Amino acid sequence: MFYIIGLGLGDPEDITVKGLNIIRECDRVYLESYTSVLCCGQEKLEAFYGKKLILADREMVEQRADEILESAESVSVAFLVVGDPFGATTHTDLMLRAKEKGIKTSIIHNASIMNAVGCCGLQLYHFGETVSIPYWDENWKPDSFYDKIVANLKHGLHTLCLLDIKVKEPTLESLMKKKREYMPPRFMSVSEAADQLLQIVAKKSQKEPAADGQRGEHKLYENTLVVGLARVGHETQQILACSLSEMKSVDLGPPLHSLIIPNGQLHPLEVEFLQQFGELNQQKM
Amino acid sequence: MFYIIGLGLGDPEDITVKGLNIIRECDRVYLESYTSVLCCGQEKLEAFYGKKLILADREMVEQRADEILESAESVSVAFLVVGDPFGATTHTDLMLRAKEKGIKTSIIHNASIMNAVGCCGLQLYHFGETVSIPYWDENWKPDSFYDKIVANLKHGLHTLCLLDIKVKEPTLESLMKKKREYMPPRFMSVSEAADQLLQIVAKKSQKEPAADGQRGEHKLYENTLVVGLARVGHETQQILACSLSEMKSVDLGPPLHSLIIPNGQLHPLEVEFLQQFGELNQQKM
Repeated sequence: MFYIIGLGLGDPEDITVKGLNIIRECDRVYLESYTSVLCCGQEKLEAFYGKKLILADREMVEQRADEILESAESVSVAFLVVGDPFGATTHTDLMLRAKEKGIKTSIIHNASIMNAVGCCGLQLYHFGETVSIPYWDENWKPDSFYDKIVANLKHGLHTLCLLDIKVKEPTLESLMKKKREYMPPRFMSVSEAADQLLQIVAKKSQKEPAADGQRGEHKLYENTLVVGLARVGHETQQILACSLSEMKSVDLGPPLHSLIIPNGQLHPLEVEFLQQFGELNQQKM
Repeated sequence: MFYIIGLGLGDPEDITVKGLNIIRECDRVYLESYTSVLCCGQEKLEAFYGKKLILADREMVEQRADEILESAESVSVAFLVVGDPFGATTHTDLMLRAKEKGIKTSIIHNASIMNAVGCCGLQLYHFGETVSIPYWDENWKPDSFYDKIVANLKHGLHTLCLLDIKVKEPTLESLMKKKREYMPPRFMSVSEAADQLLQIVAKKSQKEPAADGQRGEHKLYENTLVVGLARVGHETQQILACSLSEMKSVDLGPPLHSLIIPNGQLHPLEVEFLQQFGELNQQKM
């Protein structure tokens, strides 16, 4: 049997009882290396489970899946991932490979940021498409996520923005060498995300200055209400509701951060809930 | 401290280790009665937790919240709900009341259908607004959810349809009496949902017969691919991908069921994954 087990939001105790029981009975347990960075770390998990874990980096998952799945027809193998197992396509691919080999599979679900964002009081049913905000560099400043946010606003929907994570990125210099060297992991903060969004807002308003703010259009403004979330589900969780321009200068502490762009027609209960997380600013929309 | 603890998809073992530890240390533990119907039932949960549970029906949660929150400034009280704590507005309201009283609150997240639907292989990032399909009766046949599905299709997004649940509905006769009598609980099946959707499709095509299927419009057809899910996360989980008209005549067994309307531009990996769940039909879209 091949299990993919979701570890939830990252504390060792966030695993389900079902998941923990399976891990303890498995012959081999892989920990996705990406997950090991986002969770509390391999050693802490090993101590909690009372079990050795095998670290599986992306290269192993994508190119040596056979090794992970070896003999899973007869023995039990588990693969541990942060959040819910179906958050990433690589896990979907691993499931498909297992089925091709006639290996039975089982999924142990858990919380993920996709549903845990409800903790800010914005109703999950009112969320539209989720977007990802990537780190910009000097030459690459994609902004297609902005149009998706606007499309959600038009339909009265909130947008969850997942913020970029750079893990195991090779340094430019090392790309020339035989031995890869990696940059330290980077996690985009709500402040960095707000900064990039403000740059897009500024660019768009230069292009269409006359229309700016005059017709109650569905677009972002400097004073649009946004919600920043940090370390959701952990004891040090922080949530802040403020304007987009204010969000640029806040520090919500260590990763992971997420940003929400609420729709312009909040339900009274949503407003009441958000108010505990800071000043609710007047919105143009 | 007042805890709201998500029980996940419904097996006793779906609770997180963190949640279980809290329950065992709490002075009072409430089980939302709605949750007790959707989960394995109160007795099984009590046996698993080794703890007596107090059943809290909707009336108690909405009108006697003070009772639930009583002395939670000094003792520990937990409130258990199926899925993730923020799936329903009543829980948001309970959190607000606790904060008003100066009671500290803590949320223990878990899986919910909102993220567990990823198990069919459709990427969560490609889902748009979630819709609810209510039971129709002779006089009341709302269909506004159809327009939301179409809006999602236009933006290339999947739609998760949550299917109606009727729990503790008073019988018409008992409304006249002093003693309320309740109808047995009803859970909409994917077949019933498909039937209602087909009635809407038929009604719309009568209104606009010329346009039907000619311009690759974003709308539903009898042969639109849909995905039915039953008992997600449980051992008896079933997933079926077939046409909307075929879905009308399938039986996926006991509740809970959910229906997904995938977008018209599936990713190759999504197609490959869905193929294991039945015949992938040619779509007009």
